[in-house]
Formats: sequence, C-alpha cells, structure tokens
Amino acid sequence: MKVTLKRINDSKHFRGSNEEGQSLELSGDGNAVGPMQSLLMAAAGCSTIDIVMILEKMRQPLDDIKVEVNGTRQEEIPRVFTEIHLHYICYGDLKENKVKQAIDMSLEKYCSVSLMLAKAAKITSSFKIVNASRDSDS
Amino acid sequence: MKVTLKRINDSKHFRGSNEEGQSLELSGDGNAVGPMQSLLMAAAGCSTIDIVMILEKMRQPLDDIKVEVNGTRQEEIPRVFTEIHLHYICYGDLKENKVKQAIDMSLEKYCSVSLMLAKAAKITSSFKIVNASRDSDS
Repeated sequence: MKVTLKRINDSKHFRGSNEEGQSLELSGDGNAVGPMQSLLMAAAGCSTIDIVMILEKMRQPLDDIKVEVNGTRQEEIPRVFTEIHLHYICYGDLKENKVKQAIDMSLEKYCSVSLMLAKAAKITSSFKIVNASRDSDS
Repeated sequence: MKVTLKRINDSKHFRGSNEEGQSLELSGDGNAVGPMQSLLMAAAGCSTIDIVMILEKMRQPLDDIKVEVNGTRQEEIPRVFTEIHLHYICYGDLKENKVKQAIDMSLEKYCSVSLMLAKAAKITSSFKIVNASRDSDS
C-alpha cells in the first residue's frame, strides 16, 4: 500500500493522497485535522467498517452509527496515547448482544488499525443503542 | 483529545471531525481514503511537522517537502502493517547531515504517531535532497 504526502502551504499543512487520487488534509498548525486526531478517526473508521459488515451479516437493521473517541495522551514527550476509548452509538432496532458481539469481533480480531494501536495504548469500548421507532412507540 | 465519526452514506463512508469542526473523510468502499491508508498519512504528517520545525531551528532553508510512504501488510487477518517505510524528499539548499538528524530525531524521539506504530510494525526511513538552485547552476 502506497500513499504520498505533499505540503500545501509554506509551513505544516499537508495533503495525503492514495493511489486512486483520493485525499485528506492534515495539519500541525490548526488549519486541518491533526495527525494524532486522525489516528483516533482511523481507529473509529476501521472498526465501524467491520461493525457495519458484521451487523449486516447478522441481519441486524443498523439505521445509522456514530462514534465518539477519546484519546488520553502521555504528559511527557513523545505525547503518545496511553488510552483510547471508542463509544459507538448505534441507531436501529438492534439486539444488544449482537451489537456487543460485532464490536468485540472488530476490536479483538479484524480491525487492523485498532489492533496496531493496541500494541501501544489501552483500547476500551462502550456502546449505546438508540431505537427511534421503539422510542416513538413508547 | 476528542473526535467524532459520523456515517455520511448508508454503508461505509464516514466523516471524522475534531472539536474545532475540522474534518476528513474515510471510507471502506473506495469512496475516500481508507483507514489503513490514513494511518500511513498520519505517520508522514506527524513526522514531517517535526522535521519542518527542526530544520527551521537549524536554520536550514527547506523550500518544500514530500513524503512517499509504503506499508507492507500481513497476509493473514488482521491485516496489520508489518513494515512501514517513509521516504522524505526535501527541497532546498540543505545539508545532508542536518536532514538526516531531523528525520532521526522525529522518528526516534518526537513523532507520537510513528512511535505508537513502531510498537506494532518495523518503521524505516530514507531521504533525498533536491536542490533546484544548485541543479540550475550546474
């Protein structure tokens, strides 16, 4: 897998591109997402891709999904993450045990990003199911 | 540090946002940069921020910088990176030993992203200096 990074100002603002020409911006001066923030997004994105696929296979009707990610950084340099917490908010008429299973399968077995970061930081997770149809019935 | 990830289609296309509202897109279906690609970009971005700052402090005139990143993935699941190679192309009338020192300082001491990934994969680097003014003189 190959990517490139180019500078798009005269300081610390960059564009990363993949071989298909898709890109994203990263910055060290507040003009775009920071690299450490992007790491948390990558962990959320990678695991959520798995979770969407696993819930599909389980025929669980996932209407939407959001993730809140908190990263705790070491005080000293290098300011690596010591802990990363992923909180998944899953929308739909979903079974709690299936959602838990999908999240656990991703974080323990499939998600390459989280499994790499888990070598350096403690990764924890939690989830909430929001069932709009059930709420409107009650 | 807190970020959120939201789904922006009905499948595996996401937008990650930081608390300042800056965002980037990630996708598992080819519509945007993939999470594992973004990891390579984060390593390049994080270390290049350091390198720009260190070369500034060394009063080395860096006109531009690009990074080519290659990641080798494990064949089996989870398809984590086993090796990541960062190749820095530095433009300007730069001293080779200063560039090498800046890269080494970043990867060995400051760059939180690379130092985290180094717990899971072997990180290597190389660099090239392109001095346009010197080339045009010759």
